[in-house]
Amino acid sequence: MSLIIQKFGGDALGDKGKGRQSDEADLSGASLHVEKFRHVAEIARATQEKGHQVVVVVSAMGDTTNRLLRMANALSPTPPARELDMLMSTGEQQSIALLAIAIEALGGRSMSFTGPQVGIRTDSVFGKSRIQEIACDALKKAIDDGFIPIVAGFQGLTEEGEITTLGRGGSDITAVALAAALDAKMCEFYKDVDGIFTTDPRVCRGARKIDRISYDEMLELASLGAGVLHSRSVEFAKNYNIPLHVRSFLHDGEGTYVIPEEPAMEDIVVSGVAFNRDEAKITFQGVPDRPGIAAEIFHEIGSAGIIVDMIVQSSAYDGSNDVSFTVGKSDFQRAVDLAQKMNEDLGARKIVTDESICKVSAVGVGMRSHSNVASKMFKALAEAGINIQMISTSEIKISVVIAENELDRAVQTIHEAFAEDREFATMEEKTS
Amino acid sequence: MSLIIQKFGGDALGDKGKGRQSDEADLSGASLHVEKFRHVAEIARATQEKGHQVVVVVSAMGDTTNRLLRMANALSPTPPARELDMLMSTGEQQSIALLAIAIEALGGRSMSFTGPQVGIRTDSVFGKSRIQEIACDALKKAIDDGFIPIVAGFQGLTEEGEITTLGRGGSDITAVALAAALDAKMCEFYKDVDGIFTTDPRVCRGARKIDRISYDEMLELASLGAGVLHSRSVEFAKNYNIPLHVRSFLHDGEGTYVIPEEPAMEDIVVSGVAFNRDEAKITFQGVPDRPGIAAEIFHEIGSAGIIVDMIVQSSAYDGSNDVSFTVGKSDFQRAVDLAQKMNEDLGARKIVTDESICKVSAVGVGMRSHSNVASKMFKALAEAGINIQMISTSEIKISVVIAENELDRAVQTIHEAFAEDREFATMEEKTS
Repeated sequence: MSLIIQKFGGDALGDKGKGRQSDEADLSGASLHVEKFRHVAEIARATQEKGHQVVVVVSAMGDTTNRLLRMANALSPTPPARELDMLMSTGEQQSIALLAIAIEALGGRSMSFTGPQVGIRTDSVFGKSRIQEIACDALKKAIDDGFIPIVAGFQGLTEEGEITTLGRGGSDITAVALAAALDAKMCEFYKDVDGIFTTDPRVCRGARKIDRISYDEMLELASLGAGVLHSRSVEFAKNYNIPLHVRSFLHDGEGTYVIPEEPAMEDIVVSGVAFNRDEAKITFQGVPDRPGIAAEIFHEIGSAGIIVDMIVQSSAYDGSNDVSFTVGKSDFQRAVDLAQKMNEDLGARKIVTDESICKVSAVGVGMRSHSNVASKMFKALAEAGINIQMISTSEIKISVVIAENELDRAVQTIHEAFAEDREFATMEEKTS
Repeated sequence: MSLIIQKFGGDALGDKGKGRQSDEADLSGASLHVEKFRHVAEIARATQEKGHQVVVVVSAMGDTTNRLLRMANALSPTPPARELDMLMSTGEQQSIALLAIAIEALGGRSMSFTGPQVGIRTDSVFGKSRIQEIACDALKKAIDDGFIPIVAGFQGLTEEGEITTLGRGGSDITAVALAAALDAKMCEFYKDVDGIFTTDPRVCRGARKIDRISYDEMLELASLGAGVLHSRSVEFAKNYNIPLHVRSFLHDGEGTYVIPEEPAMEDIVVSGVAFNRDEAKITFQGVPDRPGIAAEIFHEIGSAGIIVDMIVQSSAYDGSNDVSFTVGKSDFQRAVDLAQKMNEDLGARKIVTDESICKVSAVGVGMRSHSNVASKMFKALAEAGINIQMISTSEIKISVVIAENELDRAVQTIHEAFAEDREFATMEEKTS
């Protein structure tokens, strides 16, 4: 008998959109939740009836976390992180109990477990703790006894008995960590989408669901903001070699498998095209060329808690340098202020800023074995009349910064340029 | 420095009525909750600033428990008790975190504790467990460090690590148990009423707040349905000699102290008049007189999980007996069916039933030292033309069963009959 971990997020357990603004929530919200819990219970039961052992990991109901957070923020502009974790962890605890009740109502045997009850030990960094150890004895016993254990995602306990949460993507991490600890055959993520797509279907009509993708490609796509799976959980899966399956909770069809790299994957040059609108650019023009300048700049920016995404440095004819970097739009003004202050020492000629930019990236392990991928991409953009402002590459990724208003066209252009790849053709056949 | 335990119920943290039916809850509900949490935080802080050490015990927000229970019941007609406890305990956990945040926002130092974190060990009876042990080390340390610890009422942990709840009145019990374990000077219950009243002001305009009442009197009043404090917590307080103070969260005035009996209390013959509309009567008429009949009847009824309140047996002229007893109205039909089935063996002449009855009781430790209390009460009722159907007495209580539609008049009559007591006069002065 093989063990499958199934993870259901807040959208599977309640409508995230509904009730978020107006907070009218309940009677309608509550009956909506009930339907969704029943549906999730049926999925878990059906999997068990196919002869698998099943452990389910759940998040809080779609609207719960926001509602609690709003109350905390109404009480204090800076609620203590310890108390936020105490508060937030209740959302998952409600979900596990309700799902266990739903499975028992279907005639199944189920039992809920909080993170602390499972024995998920974390460090003491409230709000974004990391899992240090999982003691699965209680879970294993429940599985052996024929139960479907329901585990609260996102939460753990420190050695001192403090309740912690794992931060963004925390429930996904719980699921993958449990899969590793329990030596599961597969970790399934049930989503409101069919799987991972070659790009965002809202931006590019040619977008296709990907059948199989490697951890590294998924990591690049995730870090580029392609959502769906959080990078920390993909990293975890890669380290422990856990196959992931991103699939829809609305139908039974296969989604996308995220798995170790296979030789056939190299045939596909570009697996996906990702983009990020949340970028803003700052350039020091004409920085005197002396060692340690870049280190100085980015040490200061990093110390201010600002995350820098792309960095490009180029030499000018006069021996001075241009140093450009991008940051998230919400950090932009702080970064500009800091840059201006730093420049009193640096002595750059000028600081140029641009908030109307975005980043578009092509990702694929096939890049390693195919030449001229970059030039093909740049040529396609040039033919479409799209100007490239910055370029950054990794082994399996090429990113360009362009004007924000050209994003849609750029994504379509790149997506089309690599569409003749075998995989795109195959997928078109499969999904049509 | 003396330690005070302050307990705030769901009505202090949110409006029980609001949102219960329509469940429109949130934006209005959430901001209402925020106001209430702030108010509770101010009470705790003010107490600390007067030089006391403070530990706060809280229930779930007024509407949370009902909302969760409704979802559980929508999922299953018989949700497993273990999962219900898992679900219900989240309500208190939300309250403790929010209150700790509110106190910190006021500049205080606070820290929340779940029942398990405090070390409240219970037995394994889900839904109505009993506290077996409290290990207060973590709490004591927090108190010594100047924090206001906020403890989740109603919940505990079994030795096996299962989350349990204490059942009805559970948060009150947590508060009193902590007061005992921490050797507190006082345990305060903040309510939406001014204290304990001589009777229900809605039924009798002459009702007055009681200043001081003994544990035993309070126990009788509580068991008679006078609400406010649950008997289990009063029993606990009596056993450990913890003074209780039932007071309003709406103003600073003194409420009612529930304390060990004092000599002066005996001067007051009747401290309170309680009543219970939830009674129905069943009579076996002409039961053949043989030993063990009563044992037989009430063993059967008790085995069916039906709680019997009053029992009266009288001998008839022919050597047969009449056996009357009362049960809660919700158990009435089951009890009647059972009585009819039993009567195939018992051979009573007739079974007579009456659903339109109620019970009115006078309570006071003064009864022990004053004669003719019962006759004074019966005489007053007779003069008012109210017929007594059953009588039951204890050392400090006289209860009568009468027709339900005479309840209000009976309460007023008895309340007036004993109003000349010194205590009533004193209180009238104080509260006017």
